[in-house]
Amino acid sequence: MVLGKRTDYGDAKYAGVQVPFTLDAPATVEAYGLCGFDFIVAPLVRDGWRPPAPTVPENGSLPSLFNRDDCLYINSSQWANQVVGLISDWIQTDSPDPAKRQQSVAALRHQLGWAAHLGLQAVVLPAPHRPGQCPNYAQVLNQTLQGLTHMALWLTVPLVLPGTPPRALHEPHPPRQAPEADAVSPMGHGKQNGVGCAFSGPVMPGAMDGWEAWHQVRAQCDHHNLLGAALLVGPTLPSLASLDRWCGEPVKAILLPTSVFITNKRGYPVLPKGHQDMLAAFFKLGVQVVLTGEACHSVASPANVGAATAGGTAVAVGPDGEPLGFNITNPGEFHPLRPYWEYLCFLFRRLEAVGEQERQETSYRDYLQVPLQPLQDNLESQTYETFEKDLQKYKLYEEAVYKALKDRYLASTTEAMSPYDLPIASTSCSDGPSRNVVLMVVGAGRGPLVRASMRAAARVGVRLRVYAVEKNPNAIVHIQQMLRSEGWERDVTIVSADMRHWQAPEPAEILVSELLGSFGDNELSPECLDGAQRFLAPGGISIPQSYTSYLAPATSHKLHHDVKSYKDLEHFETPYVVRLHRHHLLAPTQPLFTFSHPNNDAPIDNSRYATVNFHRDPAAGAAVLHGFAGYFECTLYGDVLLSIHPPSHSENMFSWFPIFFPLREPVYVPAGAPVEMQMWRCCSPHKVWYEWAVTAPVAGPIHNVGGRSYWVGL
Amino acid sequence: MVLGKRTDYGDAKYAGVQVPFTLDAPATVEAYGLCGFDFIVAPLVRDGWRPPAPTVPENGSLPSLFNRDDCLYINSSQWANQVVGLISDWIQTDSPDPAKRQQSVAALRHQLGWAAHLGLQAVVLPAPHRPGQCPNYAQVLNQTLQGLTHMALWLTVPLVLPGTPPRALHEPHPPRQAPEADAVSPMGHGKQNGVGCAFSGPVMPGAMDGWEAWHQVRAQCDHHNLLGAALLVGPTLPSLASLDRWCGEPVKAILLPTSVFITNKRGYPVLPKGHQDMLAAFFKLGVQVVLTGEACHSVASPANVGAATAGGTAVAVGPDGEPLGFNITNPGEFHPLRPYWEYLCFLFRRLEAVGEQERQETSYRDYLQVPLQPLQDNLESQTYETFEKDLQKYKLYEEAVYKALKDRYLASTTEAMSPYDLPIASTSCSDGPSRNVVLMVVGAGRGPLVRASMRAAARVGVRLRVYAVEKNPNAIVHIQQMLRSEGWERDVTIVSADMRHWQAPEPAEILVSELLGSFGDNELSPECLDGAQRFLAPGGISIPQSYTSYLAPATSHKLHHDVKSYKDLEHFETPYVVRLHRHHLLAPTQPLFTFSHPNNDAPIDNSRYATVNFHRDPAAGAAVLHGFAGYFECTLYGDVLLSIHPPSHSENMFSWFPIFFPLREPVYVPAGAPVEMQMWRCCSPHKVWYEWAVTAPVAGPIHNVGGRSYWVGL
Repeated sequence: MVLGKRTDYGDAKYAGVQVPFTLDAPATVEAYGLCGFDFIVAPLVRDGWRPPAPTVPENGSLPSLFNRDDCLYINSSQWANQVVGLISDWIQTDSPDPAKRQQSVAALRHQLGWAAHLGLQAVVLPAPHRPGQCPNYAQVLNQTLQGLTHMALWLTVPLVLPGTPPRALHEPHPPRQAPEADAVSPMGHGKQNGVGCAFSGPVMPGAMDGWEAWHQVRAQCDHHNLLGAALLVGPTLPSLASLDRWCGEPVKAILLPTSVFITNKRGYPVLPKGHQDMLAAFFKLGVQVVLTGEACHSVASPANVGAATAGGTAVAVGPDGEPLGFNITNPGEFHPLRPYWEYLCFLFRRLEAVGEQERQETSYRDYLQVPLQPLQDNLESQTYETFEKDLQKYKLYEEAVYKALKDRYLASTTEAMSPYDLPIASTSCSDGPSRNVVLMVVGAGRGPLVRASMRAAARVGVRLRVYAVEKNPNAIVHIQQMLRSEGWERDVTIVSADMRHWQAPEPAEILVSELLGSFGDNELSPECLDGAQRFLAPGGISIPQSYTSYLAPATSHKLHHDVKSYKDLEHFETPYVVRLHRHHLLAPTQPLFTFSHPNNDAPIDNSRYATVNFHRDPAAGAAVLHGFAGYFECTLYGDVLLSIHPPSHSENMFSWFPIFFPLREPVYVPAGAPVEMQMWRCCSPHKVWYEWAVTAPVAGPIHNVGGRSYWVGL
Repeated sequence: MVLGKRTDYGDAKYAGVQVPFTLDAPATVEAYGLCGFDFIVAPLVRDGWRPPAPTVPENGSLPSLFNRDDCLYINSSQWANQVVGLISDWIQTDSPDPAKRQQSVAALRHQLGWAAHLGLQAVVLPAPHRPGQCPNYAQVLNQTLQGLTHMALWLTVPLVLPGTPPRALHEPHPPRQAPEADAVSPMGHGKQNGVGCAFSGPVMPGAMDGWEAWHQVRAQCDHHNLLGAALLVGPTLPSLASLDRWCGEPVKAILLPTSVFITNKRGYPVLPKGHQDMLAAFFKLGVQVVLTGEACHSVASPANVGAATAGGTAVAVGPDGEPLGFNITNPGEFHPLRPYWEYLCFLFRRLEAVGEQERQETSYRDYLQVPLQPLQDNLESQTYETFEKDLQKYKLYEEAVYKALKDRYLASTTEAMSPYDLPIASTSCSDGPSRNVVLMVVGAGRGPLVRASMRAAARVGVRLRVYAVEKNPNAIVHIQQMLRSEGWERDVTIVSADMRHWQAPEPAEILVSELLGSFGDNELSPECLDGAQRFLAPGGISIPQSYTSYLAPATSHKLHHDVKSYKDLEHFETPYVVRLHRHHLLAPTQPLFTFSHPNNDAPIDNSRYATVNFHRDPAAGAAVLHGFAGYFECTLYGDVLLSIHPPSHSENMFSWFPIFFPLREPVYVPAGAPVEMQMWRCCSPHKVWYEWAVTAPVAGPIHNVGGRSYWVGL
């Protein structure tokens, strides 16, 4: 039974439970299924099992590895989906004792082989006994990974490593008492725009770092995609900054021992506030929870669970009156772990619903797209249509044109003429509002900016003479249609031309364009507007006025893996447009390149070079760097900002996903170490491209030399 | 005129000189050629030249970059070989001032383009003005490198970086006075066996590290093979440990300012002892010297140079009676730089001659070879012939058999029989020497071990019954021939069989084999001898008795480049047999795996795993790790050692070159940081392979997982 029927958080709705060794897996799955859990994590062998001693095979006959009574047995693939294997905890592949080490390696191989034979979807691997010093463990896993096609390995990673070996998961612990009144307080919200995930809660800054142990194993396994982390949560959480790193890692499950639950006043197991927030954050990333350990909170009986009436239907109410949202049809099915599952349900169901826009973008999450080349290629009608749906963007444009027109109108009616004022503005107080302002939309597409400009003009009461310049002859048909239906044929002149070569019949007072890419200048807005500003009158306004790109170092296992899957250098040297989801920013963004329009430099140089230093929170611990996330912030006009830069992201605007610049090799960034990168925007007569390199913590190769892998054609 | 006619140190015999700007390159080459120098390093443009300001081209016409009077001009490829270009020293591509930066980038591109156009072999690039902070410099070089096919870039790297910008090379400095009597003392010898090169001399431990500046540029340039270092030598040398790193780097030239010369009692320019040793070491690596700066030691006149008679020929004698070894035919050609050149000649000519064996191996230096698979493949007769030339190796075998026979003979005649003594040794004092000892040569090849054993037996006075087991039917024909010519037909039985499957008619007392590879066990000696020991009598002797492999972390730009040239993962996961020459060991070797024979374990497990920690000299500075050099040391019998491990290398033995395990990506090892690596020897029924990984300073991927790229067939 799922935690909730909602689908907005992916697989997070399926909860698992770790069970003792069982000879009858199907019966166990069914028993825990009645209790609510969707899958079980079951030991692959009985506790006392040890691998058969190595022998010299005689007559070619090999001893069987397992007795039927010693191993988890499944004869039907039907059950394999609901069972995750659990590797024995006694295994110490890096024991200093060679005999113990060999026995451990043999046992690990046997159990992994058996799990793969059964067709399980995943196995949970015990935490390294010597965290950060388990190269042999990594080697066995790495060899195994080469032979796997679908079974995933979930390495148990204690979030906080004690100096002593981790205790056995089954060992029951006395329940702790809940601190005052925070057990059911509403959970903290994640950051806006899905950038990273946020945690709050108790902090233990001096604790050892489980991430380091994880990183060492996966680095040796060359970042294999079937190797994931199962985070073992203890009573104490690490610092928020250090928890956030896991958002970019392949976390497959949260192992939640019953012992970390506290007891509320009514005797029900609940989680401390910090744990609630952490679970919420992982739920949002689609991460499943696996409950481990035995029940250690004595809930008296199901009779404790009262019943309230909501909307005419009987709804179960949990401790503290929390509605559980499902009917308890059979109190006889009460199981000691049921209150824990019910509490997980409660936490899952009270998550805020994902917004409509975000829901639509679900399929784009962490999906790599090569940026458009609208200058080189003609866009399809559907692409325009998608753009036009972003009403918020055109509202901002309308606002910018409105303010620009107002400023110009007020300037021309109240101030002395500057030498840059237009001759056509032969101003007197009376003819001001009725004068015609020349406005050019360059890159008009199917006409949304024409519409926004006409609306703005109507609001100001200015009459526009609009030139809609568009190089795609197909798009122009749509503008013609719009002019007819809106009755704007006299006001708008359609120009089928490349803005860089067209000869305008008169100078424009305002030049409106929407040529920005996810990284601001990456779709060659600077080059296009430089070409178009010939027909902007002196003192004329460009909308946008300026734009700045921003960068931040990022962890994203998913993106690194997807780029690597192409198995060539080219894809590692290509920036991608991507809806970043499971990612972590190692440091706040830094500004990179700024372009302003009109550009009065002579000659104009749109090449750029910058060194960017990122300042990391020393409490955040070490992290891995897979690439850089890029954004832009644009001043359309005056104070009208259009931004996908997280700190200033324009609300409800969805036209642009961030950009991602990958790195050929993941870079280990030690705790407290700086990250420095270099970025070049290079221009040649026929193309524009970026080159980038990391120079700290260690110097790496410059990517995309001479635009060899990726460039934008002029 | 070359520094000496000897050819054993490659290009080191060609010396260059840096000259002022010249409009007539051929005349300058000729003038300095008369002075002795083989090539000139000449500025590409006149001092005051600056790049033309960027303009918008009109009518498609571009301004010319250089006036004829401003640039180095060569119209014939004949001269291009003797001219190395010098890039202007004022260029600061990483200036904080954007205008200066842009002008610098333009100038650098223009000059590099001109040099490439002239077809020069190389250009010398100025040292980075902000060492370790010159990403933009690296970017321009990196872009340029992509377009080059043969012209090399030599980046000036001051060995010791002052806190202040390096002074101009042409600035004359007053000569310093020579310290007491060390100017002409014999130079220190390099380490044996060509492993690394040795320096001695003044040490300045606290100085800034030029290597770091070099590494940052070349890492950004992705270790491009046309980028090399021109080491600028100052009056003070860095520590020996830090100098040694350069042995593994692509050092293309030593820039030797006249100002570092001191004056001996007669007023002649000589170098301090440390500088002499350093030059000698680089000469041996084939590195050329370029003299820079003006003459600043006033040698009165050529009349100072006396003449002595040696072997009936008039030989010029330099200051302090050093023979110059050439005739001064025309004293009128005296040039102020001539005494410097003469001194370089002196240093070059007094280098000890390269031994005959090393000379023969010259063509194998740093040349990658995939190890033999003698078990899987049959060797050709010529391969056997090459092996058999290593007389020293067979002397050691003879000595081992001799000692083993003596020990056994003495044991059987002087001691009570142990339960393991052989029944055939029905001993009495009298029949001892005449008894037949059964000795088996497994892997007899064309018979050299049969010969060595027969000789040893003759020395002891024991009669052998030899079985020569060889799986290659072609090789056996040669043994038959040897038996006939030596009259050994009655003593030696030839067995054409695989030692692992042959059924011996009687047990052997001594088992002799030569199955070792460069890494000891890498040609499957353990597996073969495990199979053969069936017919070794209890208490019998295996020659070899045991062997141990050794590893050391290594810098080798050349090998990294050669492996990378294959452009696939496979070659990065293959160990190579290679005569290591231009390389640097980051730390002393550490032992890895040991195998002993006979092996009484049941069952026998020849798989191995070890973590190796290397201890670096903290004074050695940072270095780059390209892979690991491997060696072996073998106890043939008792104290008879056969070794290619540098500290114990058997003299005059040349059968094995070291082995090299590459790394996919070069690893930057900070000063004082530890190096830790993991090595596995993995065995499956049909193959044996190694896997390896670096785990410190940073964890990297395990190489050759499951033997996917390289394995040895059983």
